[in-house]
Amino acid sequence: MKILLCVLLTTVFPVHVHSLWPIPRAMQSGSTPLLLANDLNIQYKFSNVPSDLQAAVAQTKKFLQTDQLGRLVVDRGASDLPLISKASRLSTLSLALHGTGKPLSISQVAVSALETRDESYTLNVPADGSAASLTANTTLGLFRGLTTFGQLFFFTSGQTYTLKAPFTITDSPAYPYRGFMLDTARNFFPVADIQRTLDAMSWVKTNTFHWHIVDSQSFPLQVPGFPELSAKGAYASNLVYTPADVQNIVSYAAARGIDVLVEIDTPGHTSVISKSHPELIACAESTPWASFANEPPAGQLRFTSPTTTNFTASLLSAVAKLFPSKLMSTGGDEINQNCYNTDAETQSDLKAQGRTFEQALDVFTQATHGAVRASGKTPVVWEEMVLSHNVTLSNDTIAMVWISSEDAAAVAQKGFRIIHAPSDYFYLDCGHGGWVGAFPSGNSWCDPFKTWQKAYTFNPLANIAPAQNHLILGGEHLLWTEQSSPSNLDSIVWPRAASSAEVFWTGPTQPTGQPLDVREALPRLHEIAFRMQKRGVNAIPLQPLWCALRPDACDIDR
Amino acid sequence: MKILLCVLLTTVFPVHVHSLWPIPRAMQSGSTPLLLANDLNIQYKFSNVPSDLQAAVAQTKKFLQTDQLGRLVVDRGASDLPLISKASRLSTLSLALHGTGKPLSISQVAVSALETRDESYTLNVPADGSAASLTANTTLGLFRGLTTFGQLFFFTSGQTYTLKAPFTITDSPAYPYRGFMLDTARNFFPVADIQRTLDAMSWVKTNTFHWHIVDSQSFPLQVPGFPELSAKGAYASNLVYTPADVQNIVSYAAARGIDVLVEIDTPGHTSVISKSHPELIACAESTPWASFANEPPAGQLRFTSPTTTNFTASLLSAVAKLFPSKLMSTGGDEINQNCYNTDAETQSDLKAQGRTFEQALDVFTQATHGAVRASGKTPVVWEEMVLSHNVTLSNDTIAMVWISSEDAAAVAQKGFRIIHAPSDYFYLDCGHGGWVGAFPSGNSWCDPFKTWQKAYTFNPLANIAPAQNHLILGGEHLLWTEQSSPSNLDSIVWPRAASSAEVFWTGPTQPTGQPLDVREALPRLHEIAFRMQKRGVNAIPLQPLWCALRPDACDIDR
Repeated sequence: MKILLCVLLTTVFPVHVHSLWPIPRAMQSGSTPLLLANDLNIQYKFSNVPSDLQAAVAQTKKFLQTDQLGRLVVDRGASDLPLISKASRLSTLSLALHGTGKPLSISQVAVSALETRDESYTLNVPADGSAASLTANTTLGLFRGLTTFGQLFFFTSGQTYTLKAPFTITDSPAYPYRGFMLDTARNFFPVADIQRTLDAMSWVKTNTFHWHIVDSQSFPLQVPGFPELSAKGAYASNLVYTPADVQNIVSYAAARGIDVLVEIDTPGHTSVISKSHPELIACAESTPWASFANEPPAGQLRFTSPTTTNFTASLLSAVAKLFPSKLMSTGGDEINQNCYNTDAETQSDLKAQGRTFEQALDVFTQATHGAVRASGKTPVVWEEMVLSHNVTLSNDTIAMVWISSEDAAAVAQKGFRIIHAPSDYFYLDCGHGGWVGAFPSGNSWCDPFKTWQKAYTFNPLANIAPAQNHLILGGEHLLWTEQSSPSNLDSIVWPRAASSAEVFWTGPTQPTGQPLDVREALPRLHEIAFRMQKRGVNAIPLQPLWCALRPDACDIDR
Repeated sequence: MKILLCVLLTTVFPVHVHSLWPIPRAMQSGSTPLLLANDLNIQYKFSNVPSDLQAAVAQTKKFLQTDQLGRLVVDRGASDLPLISKASRLSTLSLALHGTGKPLSISQVAVSALETRDESYTLNVPADGSAASLTANTTLGLFRGLTTFGQLFFFTSGQTYTLKAPFTITDSPAYPYRGFMLDTARNFFPVADIQRTLDAMSWVKTNTFHWHIVDSQSFPLQVPGFPELSAKGAYASNLVYTPADVQNIVSYAAARGIDVLVEIDTPGHTSVISKSHPELIACAESTPWASFANEPPAGQLRFTSPTTTNFTASLLSAVAKLFPSKLMSTGGDEINQNCYNTDAETQSDLKAQGRTFEQALDVFTQATHGAVRASGKTPVVWEEMVLSHNVTLSNDTIAMVWISSEDAAAVAQKGFRIIHAPSDYFYLDCGHGGWVGAFPSGNSWCDPFKTWQKAYTFNPLANIAPAQNHLILGGEHLLWTEQSSPSNLDSIVWPRAASSAEVFWTGPTQPTGQPLDVREALPRLHEIAFRMQKRGVNAIPLQPLWCALRPDACDIDR
């Protein structure tokens, strides 16, 4: 009878019977129905349970009640009822930590150094209703496991269940850095929108919020000691992030396993500083803007000036105090040479100092990176600082490759660690047309739209020599917000950004041993999108519902 | 002193000092500041005021209080305070109707025949605080004028004001049909989302909601006499439009000056009817789907069969009763020949009847269009019925041109009236990548993304001979929803769809006599987008706020 049931299951429900995203690196599952008790008891096998872990457990239990996700079949699982009517019922999940002593909180582990952060966990869910167990080395690992546990179950007619017990999952990320970048300077995003984004990130095990917090257009960050920057540089007095807002976001993120990597882009992308410190900025709002910057307004720090250099280093030190992360970005992209060539002060400085442009940039970089290091952080830079300039960077500097995915190889050859952020795979803004005015035929510079499928086929090790593979830390999706605001934040990001979350968590291979494959992934991506909708994140549909409910039926070759 | 002020205004606020969208066809404005009284009295110069007009007046007063739209200057108008401190205050707007007798309601006029519907109005707003007057031939004209009046004012520090009084506006649409199409079959949209869309449409004077209500994927419409279609064809029992829902939407639309043009697409795009009437559908869900349809699932009405023809005519008659419009679409796009070639019943029918495929299609079309006409409506069809098939269409049939804007010329040469719905200008879904499964490199078939700028440069009379210009009824933006749902409805539609609303209301010429121009339009489009956000529609930003607050500063040549 049991064998017959198994055959039946295999026939009727061939593959897409769990809704995990990202899929674990190692997983075995069976074909036995298992019900979840409404009053699931999640118990701790250790003491001194940190409050953020307790909150995560409460949230897990809540989602297990409220997700009520129907399976991706035409009847949404109604016909599963006979299969589960006599199933065993899981009533206990126990959490255990390896090691002894008072455990660190999720938040403490989440902001620790990438190199030592441990997100691994093992999860066992027996088929017979006996207690499930989740074990990890850290509370962050337990948090990742809770996230997986919360995705194992479907819902129909008042029952929360799986058809695939038992589960044995041994999981850890393939890459330590899995990020999402948000630009809050082109257009402003209230704290609540960022928090909602952090929630969604945590559901797909993304672990870094790269916060491109200021840029040439606006300076919304209130920096202690530098109140004039936001007072004169924010779009409005209420469109700011106070230190309390930052603390709120940092702690909200950390409790969800997310580190906040703040970026103060220098020396370019700083026009708005001219509002409070005109003497620090070359070519501020100069026109025609296209001669002085990649987008309006023009304006770059006069990095040749000791005054500007000291100001920038002090600013970085002050910002660093707001963020517990071990990483901090000093930017370094798109330095416009013409701006400096035509700036009398810069040319005068260079002449007086007897330095070349690159020598002066090196002095500036030593000072700013020195400030970052003195704050206990490792500098992160955009790829130009490695590939386009002749500055000395410490070996542990991390470079974000954005111009083209092909540039990663050159960065690796120089021996620097890499975060993949390529515009040709992970730029969420591309393909929505040009935003520059008076340009009716203008398209997006990085056309076409980067589909989830494109991102999903990204190979982190493409063109990287095996000896340099260790330099690849991971990658991130990015949202530049020339044409985005809270109005389209969720819809432009989700579920697309989940694709990189899986690429960098799961690595190249499914637990079946097969390579990652968009055909296999699509139903699971539908499911995480539906789950996000249930949880209040406006993820968009990837297909007509007709297709979503019939996995593979809308594949190109069916 | 007054002259000095004028010069000052011209210098500081050069052009973008009103926020009208669409811009009226004829308008004169001055440069005198004018305040709006908080207790503005909107009075009627006629009796028997219809309740929908009263509701529109109440809504206008409410928006004048709640929009609180700051001008597009860096200080959002704060520095206007000295200018307006001694301005006159407008306290009365009087509404007058030409003609005598009990006026028709907005709703009655909104659903009347396109050929006779009158949306014209004149609006005078004196600069000295004496009563403003709005005059029209119909209550619908008054509604359009109220919409314009509600866009004349800005807000700062508790004051609602304009800097450009007096206004003399004489306005009427250049084209009688200005539409928006929504597909509610690929993915479902609740009534509230449609109502919110109707609101936004009315704010830009769009007058037709083209409701592509059913398609091959789902049949959400509950049709009296045909309950099985939605019972077996809706995505779920709660994802339906009941007759009460339809009535709700139709009346909500009409009160906002919007006619609802329903489409029952035939004979293609009907696969879902096979769920309840398998005998009526050829190649239902046949695979490989690409051999039988442009997208899955395949399935088309067996139009050669008298049973199918009678069923379809009866269905159209039943649907027609739900909609007061004088227009109804029978579809007619993308008929797949292979589906019928390989359908034994169809081939047997043709042989028995001694008819060619096109002869049989003609018989079917006469029957379906006969049912539409018997319901008092004029048939609307997709362009293929004119250009790709050899069927007899009555001279007054209206063709929607969608495959390419270039096809309008051929339709006009055949003498049919045209609604522009070209995929190369007005398809809102294009450019978001392919949605077909297992196709990682797939892009959107109609790449690239159609920007508002592209739509705004559409020329309704391109390649149309002057003698055929009268055939152009107008046009519409369209949203096919393979990748859309309420999650991205607002953000994919607004403010983009406002561009066609202006092209077809204002026509080719600004009131200044200059041709429509994206440079002139952009600040006004920012303003209608911001206004939509204030009113609860999630229109997206078109630029960084830095650019929006500095009109023209981000133009390509500045």
